[in-house]
Amino acid sequence: MWDSLWINGRLATMREGAVPYGTIEPGAIAVEGSRIAWVGPVGELPRRTARNIHDLDGRWVTPGLVDCHTHLVYGGDRAQEFERRLNGATYEEIAKAGGGIRSTVTATRAATEASLLASATERLKPLLAEGLTTIEIKSGYGLERDAEIKQLKVARALGERHPVTVRTTFLAAHALPPEYEGRPDEYIDAVASKMLPAAHAAGLVDAVDAFCERIGFTAAQTEKLFRAATSFGLPVKIHAEQLSDQKGAVLGTRYGALSADHLEYLGEDGVQAMANTGTVAVLLPGAFYFLRETKLPPIEALRKAGVPIALATDSNPGSSPVTSLLLMLNMGATLFRLTPEETLAGITRNAAKALGLGGSIGTLQAGKRADFAVWNIDRPAELTYRIGFNPLYQRVWQGKPDAKVAGEPRLQPEPVAAANAG
Amino acid sequence: MWDSLWINGRLATMREGAVPYGTIEPGAIAVEGSRIAWVGPVGELPRRTARNIHDLDGRWVTPGLVDCHTHLVYGGDRAQEFERRLNGATYEEIAKAGGGIRSTVTATRAATEASLLASATERLKPLLAEGLTTIEIKSGYGLERDAEIKQLKVARALGERHPVTVRTTFLAAHALPPEYEGRPDEYIDAVASKMLPAAHAAGLVDAVDAFCERIGFTAAQTEKLFRAATSFGLPVKIHAEQLSDQKGAVLGTRYGALSADHLEYLGEDGVQAMANTGTVAVLLPGAFYFLRETKLPPIEALRKAGVPIALATDSNPGSSPVTSLLLMLNMGATLFRLTPEETLAGITRNAAKALGLGGSIGTLQAGKRADFAVWNIDRPAELTYRIGFNPLYQRVWQGKPDAKVAGEPRLQPEPVAAANAG
Ligand SMILES: [Zn+2]
Ligand SMILES: [Zn+2]
Repeated sequence: MWDSLWINGRLATMREGAVPYGTIEPGAIAVEGSRIAWVGPVGELPRRTARNIHDLDGRWVTPGLVDCHTHLVYGGDRAQEFERRLNGATYEEIAKAGGGIRSTVTATRAATEASLLASATERLKPLLAEGLTTIEIKSGYGLERDAEIKQLKVARALGERHPVTVRTTFLAAHALPPEYEGRPDEYIDAVASKMLPAAHAAGLVDAVDAFCERIGFTAAQTEKLFRAATSFGLPVKIHAEQLSDQKGAVLGTRYGALSADHLEYLGEDGVQAMANTGTVAVLLPGAFYFLRETKLPPIEALRKAGVPIALATDSNPGSSPVTSLLLMLNMGATLFRLTPEETLAGITRNAAKALGLGGSIGTLQAGKRADFAVWNIDRPAELTYRIGFNPLYQRVWQGKPDAKVAGEPRLQPEPVAAANAG
Repeated sequence: MWDSLWINGRLATMREGAVPYGTIEPGAIAVEGSRIAWVGPVGELPRRTARNIHDLDGRWVTPGLVDCHTHLVYGGDRAQEFERRLNGATYEEIAKAGGGIRSTVTATRAATEASLLASATERLKPLLAEGLTTIEIKSGYGLERDAEIKQLKVARALGERHPVTVRTTFLAAHALPPEYEGRPDEYIDAVASKMLPAAHAAGLVDAVDAFCERIGFTAAQTEKLFRAATSFGLPVKIHAEQLSDQKGAVLGTRYGALSADHLEYLGEDGVQAMANTGTVAVLLPGAFYFLRETKLPPIEALRKAGVPIALATDSNPGSSPVTSLLLMLNMGATLFRLTPEETLAGITRNAAKALGLGGSIGTLQAGKRADFAVWNIDRPAELTYRIGFNPLYQRVWQGKPDAKVAGEPRLQPEPVAAANAG
């Protein structure tokens, strides 16, 4: 006897293959414990019953959504700075007033774990309400050992308090802290030899990331950190080629990077290197939009080379104050010309790969975690086409549906008696 | 005794004047019936009690949101066409397959009132959940008398079934229906002499609009319709200068147009004419974004001339499948460089003006409708800064709060016992 059985769904399984969206229709999903025990056409369902049977009533089911690049935990906010800039303040004036990333670092260092948890929870909730079941959360606003550890602890706490899988990424190499002004090599030494070991020893690091950019860290500095990460057996990721081509993606692939992220300025060498190592291209249309970037990532080259493409919110206060992963589908299509199927793969199958979780989540397949989302839509492309619309009906994480059905019952036509206004 | 009293709020009254956002802090709002009886600083509150007293607990209050340009009622959807195009289909192939606006016209003509009401309700709900209290809804997908009337009846029905004020706009001059292929003058004659009179006689028309554009109707055709509208005493609006400068805005001002909408290609003559007549510039960043337009409306010229600027969703299946008015705040700031205060005025005070309702809604002032929205935010700019985030706490329409508090209670820091993962 299965624990639960979901029948009469239209399943966008997103498994790799020829069928668009990996569709099975009508399909069924059997769940045992936290895993999918069986997925397939209703007509082939084994003769076996289940404790709970859910009739999906023709609704679409996708894998649970995966946001594979966020900076969700931080102190303060930058709404005031945003307003000042639009009111005409220059970057200099804002920097003088303590604005920019340094203001977030100051606020994050000053914040208690409790207040960081409260504000991050506020940002997590709208993502969960859209069917999110896995989220990556980076540190990178502490920029000193204890504050980085505090951020990562709060990230873990989010996963303990909410029905969602959290993957932590250590990103102390996000920006140079003021104490190290003019001494980036010394900072990277401290990150690699003191901060990372401490955070790792505390069990808080699932991956290591760096911002490799003219305004971030050089390829050589990044490599020093990646060597340390590798010595601990930790996988690496890289913020690469957002503003210029630093060959960060190529560097990443030499350390088997799970993903290279942003990539507006990625060259053909980077594309080929990523294709060879299976490194995921994580595109961040929210930052592209918010920064009014005009240089597009090399989508066609990535596609041709077979590089898996993921999309994420990049949720952060400075360049992507975004808490809607569904909106990233539309931005991925509208701004980057990804197809709706590519955008959905980008927040399911390929986002899972970007976290090293391709074997356990990201598609609806037997043996994987029973993480899925049920939608009031007529076709999967609606998720990408619509803007500012959340048709989630129900979210299921590790086999457990949320208590509350998130959406409305499917709307049925009703008589229009009152419409006779004329 | 007042019916209700809202105390300890931070009021962004949005009344015109020197104080940013017209802020009163701490402020109170007294409501009698459906109207605001008194607004002011808590310290100046008259000694008078109320049946219901609501403690706003420091929350921000804005006027209820006004979406002053939508095409919310239509049949079918265009997700499939969106997907085909991103999969490489040409416009020709899509047109051949019955796509484009004609597919929406076909679906709208075929739809029952009940099904139109159901699908429009689905789109209205997310807007209400963001604090919307007034919405304009255009016809324009029927393009024949009965189908236009059907759309307008459904628009009115939405207002009768939901706590929201609906203003209807007759837009039969939206596109040329297939039956009139090659005979636009004859169509405009029919619109002006038959369709408009019938819809007006049925009490379904609050304003008259036209799509004045190379791919729409000429200025001369538009003027013919405006003459008819004026003869009925109906105010006019105009879709102007979206793709080229047809001098539509100037034409509109000659008929005292409430608003000219889109305006990417508006020239200095149009700006001056609008300033002279007080015609509102309704900017539609959702369509600008979705169509990947690069020509910006002349924001600085509009500002300098003192033309009131409004923002709206333009919610429609072809060029702006948007059902978030809050997102338009961010797009207005990010894409058009409006200040947060300008964007908020654009969906309150100036949106009200664009509907001819400047005297009764759009600001928190005594005598106006008690339409307002209560928010879990620290400053009004957050509404514009954040993307994909809805901090609505409560919506009040005509003095009546929604039964359900839409948002969460304000988050308080809580202890992080479980955070000790390391
Ligand atoms: Zn990032
Ligand atoms: Zn329109």
